[in-house]
Amino acid sequence: MISSANAIIAQSGGPTAVINNSVAGVFDAWYKNTAGGRLYAGISGIKGILEGHILDLAAQEKSVLAGLKYTPGAGLFSCRYKLGEGDSQKLLKTFKKLNIRFFFYNGGNDSMDTAHKIAEAAKDNGWEMYIIGIPKTIDNDLPYTDHTPGYGSAAKYIAATVRETGIDLESVFTKNKVTILEAMGRNTGWLTAAGALAKRREDEAPHLLYLPEVPFSYQLFLEDVEEVYKQLGYCYVVVSEGLADADGNYIAAAPTTDAFGHRQLSGAGEKLKNMVETELGLKARCNTLGTTQRAAMHFASRTDANEAYMTGQAAVMYALAGKSRLMVTINRLSQEPYSSAAGEIGLEKTANIERKLPLEWINKKGNYITNEFISYARPLIEGEVDIPIQNGLPDYVKLDMNKGKVML
Amino acid sequence: MISSANAIIAQSGGPTAVINNSVAGVFDAWYKNTAGGRLYAGISGIKGILEGHILDLAAQEKSVLAGLKYTPGAGLFSCRYKLGEGDSQKLLKTFKKLNIRFFFYNGGNDSMDTAHKIAEAAKDNGWEMYIIGIPKTIDNDLPYTDHTPGYGSAAKYIAATVRETGIDLESVFTKNKVTILEAMGRNTGWLTAAGALAKRREDEAPHLLYLPEVPFSYQLFLEDVEEVYKQLGYCYVVVSEGLADADGNYIAAAPTTDAFGHRQLSGAGEKLKNMVETELGLKARCNTLGTTQRAAMHFASRTDANEAYMTGQAAVMYALAGKSRLMVTINRLSQEPYSSAAGEIGLEKTANIERKLPLEWINKKGNYITNEFISYARPLIEGEVDIPIQNGLPDYVKLDMNKGKVML
Repeated sequence: MISSANAIIAQSGGPTAVINNSVAGVFDAWYKNTAGGRLYAGISGIKGILEGHILDLAAQEKSVLAGLKYTPGAGLFSCRYKLGEGDSQKLLKTFKKLNIRFFFYNGGNDSMDTAHKIAEAAKDNGWEMYIIGIPKTIDNDLPYTDHTPGYGSAAKYIAATVRETGIDLESVFTKNKVTILEAMGRNTGWLTAAGALAKRREDEAPHLLYLPEVPFSYQLFLEDVEEVYKQLGYCYVVVSEGLADADGNYIAAAPTTDAFGHRQLSGAGEKLKNMVETELGLKARCNTLGTTQRAAMHFASRTDANEAYMTGQAAVMYALAGKSRLMVTINRLSQEPYSSAAGEIGLEKTANIERKLPLEWINKKGNYITNEFISYARPLIEGEVDIPIQNGLPDYVKLDMNKGKVML
Repeated sequence: MISSANAIIAQSGGPTAVINNSVAGVFDAWYKNTAGGRLYAGISGIKGILEGHILDLAAQEKSVLAGLKYTPGAGLFSCRYKLGEGDSQKLLKTFKKLNIRFFFYNGGNDSMDTAHKIAEAAKDNGWEMYIIGIPKTIDNDLPYTDHTPGYGSAAKYIAATVRETGIDLESVFTKNKVTILEAMGRNTGWLTAAGALAKRREDEAPHLLYLPEVPFSYQLFLEDVEEVYKQLGYCYVVVSEGLADADGNYIAAAPTTDAFGHRQLSGAGEKLKNMVETELGLKARCNTLGTTQRAAMHFASRTDANEAYMTGQAAVMYALAGKSRLMVTINRLSQEPYSSAAGEIGLEKTANIERKLPLEWINKKGNYITNEFISYARPLIEGEVDIPIQNGLPDYVKLDMNKGKVML
């Protein structure tokens, strides 16, 4: 292990409510376990590092650093950037100049691929580095980990929203008959399935779930909705944004025309809502959660926040122990009471692999999930995060970009 | 005042997060100030009363009655129903049979009209009644009251969501450039304007607000978005579902109408999002809040919940004092510290009148609100409501429809 070297952390991809807990975990573990080394932050992921946007995190106000534990959005700013030609060399030049031997990349599966490539480039250049991926994604689609930091909070928010808007639907069903909630999830149904956590009784929302893992059929969908409606007088449906039919055509890709006569795409939920109204003649509403589900720190999961912090800490401990080229994972140690611990998996194994909802957790009709999923997801939404409130609203923090600016 | 007569309460129209606080206020005030009289609940508004769905509220479990103070949705179920021929006579027959002399109707402007008609019918029939309207609507569009119960909680949730998804947008703006949030509001911009409560600094969300009070221009909208984008690199827009152009054409027009002939709207945000992508070439996202904004008790306003309870109490006190044919209002007594008290206005004055956002609270360009609105709305979102949590989710209650069933 190299003493008095420096470290850098950056974030990539879509944020989660608890993503900055991982930064806090890295920060705390770094300064607790090292002497002399700095922890830099790349602002806007590797794109920012390439452009020289680097801060010395310790120069931030204490209140801002503490605030990372309850602030959503990518606190260090994020990017979506694929390494281009010469980029790895440029990054290494910066790392050498700042004596950076530790790189922590907080992101999803694309980011693990990027971290792996940087590790390769460092090796080729003979620049000793310890590179650790810290997972984050509300999609829960990373392999080799029980779940991903960020998923629990999104799941909790979605389930609470289904319960609330489900009660709303039930109470006004003489007017509205069908509510459709569109959750994120291009290729996996983890978020949509989380809606089922809301259900306490058979007649409660949700009644139907449509997941990208199951080829979508308009005909079966309409039959399902009609059946529930005939039984209860109302029907609550959760759908994934990425639903596609058996031929792989996205439901959302059906063209309509805007005011200028241009073709445009509309959301899967909105499309199905209109179909319910025109085909079944039932009044329907669509709620499209969009980015609210990945930013709703005001009702985040305490379990999730703790685990995001833990993965940040573990990343530092692994790196300081001389490990590299791995992604931190979460292992479930016990179910009741729930407990978990950090684990590790080689970066090269996780890069660009997408983990889908197990098919055996989906019912035979392909329109709901089984109790195995409920047992799996329930502990991940336990507990709430205390947030300082000012003027009735969460008082989130922001880094001061003029504090600790690193000159290259 | 008539002694040992009975009372009935019912709910109508779209729910709010705090609507059941008004029922709790009526219940508590009724049993504190009367002796022997029952408080019945009409299940599903006057439609339910017409069909004989009536409960004796005191027969419910204590925990359920207490739970009304933190449970969203219409706890007594709601309806949208216009009185038809013979309905008033049928209602009066039920009122006479159950010796009901007090009718509390918890609803919006359509409901005040209904309550007024029932008062007329009772008078024509010589059946002495005390009829009081208890306002509720997230739309804040009732006249003669400083604001409506339900508005503060929806405003708080919208503002929190704008702050959270605004931070999200800022932190990922290398990818997403524009976020559009669609709030409810057919003809008034009160909810959309509430998004402005999120803003602490000039560069923060929201940057643009489009309100139904201002005729919408596609051209000006695109110019506005482009201007903000050029300055900041991103742009956050809140729009009302009911935006219409200078000719009165809705930006989004849906195929159905409700029982009152109101057009049901959805999709303005989605439409504008697509326009930003096709016309400006900027990657955009649309979050459609839908029914989440009227059901989000998990982040409701304490001030709002208290006032909803107060209006329920006041309704009983007015009725027991021999007053009738009035709607309870909320008067703002002082601004700092904020305080309010119940007031009253004749039902015939409020019926079917819609209060719009004052034009002097909208800026000259018609794309934002002034500080007068902020001063007005800020106190209404203060404080939070404690909610019991079970398994990580709000543990809302439901009436037991088998307890206290009234046989006619």
